[in-house]
Amino acid sequence: MNKLSQEIRSLYSGQTQTIGSLGNVETKYFTFANPPDLFTLESGEKIGPLTLAYETYGTLDEGKTNAVLIPHALSGDAHVAGTHPGEKKPGWWDDMVGPGKGIDTDKYFVVCSNVLGGCKGSTGPCSTNPQTRKPYGLGFPIVTIGDIVEAQRHLIDYLGIEKLLAVVGGSMGGMQVLQWMVGYPDRIRAAVPVATALKHTPQQIAFNAVGRQAVMADPEWKKGNYYTSSVPAKGLAVARMIGHITYMSDASMAEKFGRRTKPEKGSFKFSAEYEVEGYLRYKGDNFVKRFDANSYLYITKAIDCFNILNGHSLDSIFKGLKAKVLVLAFKSDWLYPSHQSQEIVKACKLAGVDASYCELNSTYGHDAFLLETEEQAKLISHFLRPVSNGKHYGGYQA
Amino acid sequence: MNKLSQEIRSLYSGQTQTIGSLGNVETKYFTFANPPDLFTLESGEKIGPLTLAYETYGTLDEGKTNAVLIPHALSGDAHVAGTHPGEKKPGWWDDMVGPGKGIDTDKYFVVCSNVLGGCKGSTGPCSTNPQTRKPYGLGFPIVTIGDIVEAQRHLIDYLGIEKLLAVVGGSMGGMQVLQWMVGYPDRIRAAVPVATALKHTPQQIAFNAVGRQAVMADPEWKKGNYYTSSVPAKGLAVARMIGHITYMSDASMAEKFGRRTKPEKGSFKFSAEYEVEGYLRYKGDNFVKRFDANSYLYITKAIDCFNILNGHSLDSIFKGLKAKVLVLAFKSDWLYPSHQSQEIVKACKLAGVDASYCELNSTYGHDAFLLETEEQAKLISHFLRPVSNGKHYGGYQA
Repeated sequence: MNKLSQEIRSLYSGQTQTIGSLGNVETKYFTFANPPDLFTLESGEKIGPLTLAYETYGTLDEGKTNAVLIPHALSGDAHVAGTHPGEKKPGWWDDMVGPGKGIDTDKYFVVCSNVLGGCKGSTGPCSTNPQTRKPYGLGFPIVTIGDIVEAQRHLIDYLGIEKLLAVVGGSMGGMQVLQWMVGYPDRIRAAVPVATALKHTPQQIAFNAVGRQAVMADPEWKKGNYYTSSVPAKGLAVARMIGHITYMSDASMAEKFGRRTKPEKGSFKFSAEYEVEGYLRYKGDNFVKRFDANSYLYITKAIDCFNILNGHSLDSIFKGLKAKVLVLAFKSDWLYPSHQSQEIVKACKLAGVDASYCELNSTYGHDAFLLETEEQAKLISHFLRPVSNGKHYGGYQA
Repeated sequence: MNKLSQEIRSLYSGQTQTIGSLGNVETKYFTFANPPDLFTLESGEKIGPLTLAYETYGTLDEGKTNAVLIPHALSGDAHVAGTHPGEKKPGWWDDMVGPGKGIDTDKYFVVCSNVLGGCKGSTGPCSTNPQTRKPYGLGFPIVTIGDIVEAQRHLIDYLGIEKLLAVVGGSMGGMQVLQWMVGYPDRIRAAVPVATALKHTPQQIAFNAVGRQAVMADPEWKKGNYYTSSVPAKGLAVARMIGHITYMSDASMAEKFGRRTKPEKGSFKFSAEYEVEGYLRYKGDNFVKRFDANSYLYITKAIDCFNILNGHSLDSIFKGLKAKVLVLAFKSDWLYPSHQSQEIVKACKLAGVDASYCELNSTYGHDAFLLETEEQAKLISHFLRPVSNGKHYGGYQA
């Protein structure tokens, strides 16, 4: 569907929606929590200064009412759309974000920041610990989805945005959306949690836990002190391979690979023989080049700890929320199955929140939130329009 | 269900069905393909001598008509039921096999052998290569499910059994059942493939491939030459952890662990915190003590290569098969989902084979074939009775 259908849609709508149509974009950096005014984490630990890498697209209107925050998923970053100078590959949701696209940068001011604990410009375990002047490594404190959103909130304050038009995100991005709904209900007018869950189940924890185990089983990991030597490449690659299986579906793998073989060059008995094996190997090895193993540990841990209920009842968590909510799920997503999205809708409805739900047909599995952009774009743009026009009760009356 | 329901059933039926009720059993060894009369593998490679470790329970009747072969799954062995002297833990299907049990050793002569390529007494990569007088390691040839069954056939010949009453097996054991149905249709009177598939799908290959990758990523693996040093314990443990997730279901994990935490002793940031993590770690570490990493590579590879269709059409593969077939699947089994079992039934029906199908309710996932023995026992014993009484057209007319 992805690229091809995007082009077809463009032809049909008469719009020019090319890849990277935002043109060159720039990553910016916001530093806060400078000593002695440190950032207090949910654990009670204090840390600072903190830097968030972020990007913005479009123009913030005079009333600062048109800002859409897009939190990213596990391996994402601040680079949602457009291209970086000298690079051909656009941001990770370029199909969705840009002029005339689902989240239209001609209308909206889009903000995305790399998460706290990440490795794409925001402070994380690979950053220099000002106390030791060495990388934090495992000296970096455990962070939660709550901490990640609290850091984002500092950025939103810094940008002078009192109320976000919307927060839109999938997977771990969706957990951040839910955290905004619970933590800052008065600062959002709309929320779109996609392919996500109110809490991580033991099966979801298990997949992440085995990934962490694979990283830590690699002797190059050295309890996180690998920044001056080789990285735990093999362990992180295995972790990513496990992840990748869970992001796809049985059907999408059958469509993409079947049982076709494609033996590796110089192959031996247990080389990648089937296409699916070669693909996973490639994805695993590639991930190592762009991701820090310790960040993988910290971020998967934040995801595993996520439980927005946290002892509260389903009907109480969204009480008083005036934001309008659109919950999206995908039929073949078995990592975050649709019943988990339906539980979010139920929690909204029990609290009297204006929520709607769409389950999209797709064979892409969990990856569908990144790949099935055509329908998502329509659903999200139609959902945001009345909110941005102030017709929704949570809207601004200028 | 498992133990408790077994006891309840025993009370109800008035039978004494205790654990290990077969009493002490013994593993025996059969050596064949002695040079120069080597065993030819599907690949064309030749190997020998070969030894198969096997156990038998019950008494072979005079006509040798009451033999039931039980091929085992990936991590199984020849020790199906009863106990080994000095050990408390009974064989892996003790709930199912024994006097008065589902596969009744008062009626049937049960045979199980450890697979070729295994590490529980049969010739495999950890066996001594007679050419080098060192362990085979990766010098061991690739074996297929076809080779595994061909080796079993030698054992059945040796035992003087012309026609098996039945072949019954789950998971990889089920693949061996299918292989008997195709390879030796005239030597079986009944077949019970449980929780299995006609061919491995790319998703199923993917899980095994990542497990192999985890083993090979462990520097202790040393391209399979670890028999005189440390074993690749961490890599094999990760592989087993991945496997274990796929053997359970979302629901069974939720029932068993929920989001309960149980931090490890001396825990640090990324120790097993959730119960499910600790359980997987335990299962992984335990597996290393009882399984050879190279065997894990060879056997998972045999499974991945399994495709009983092998270019033939669905309606042709079981053509001419006179055996009666019972196909069993479990609702929550997402590793070998029931549609794969239904495809086996379809292939049987298309070929005019007398096949029936039962999908059992269970939340245990793929593990259900080992754990849900109560219903399976009834289904299998009722299925075998007319076959053993010679009422089935494929039966003996003494």
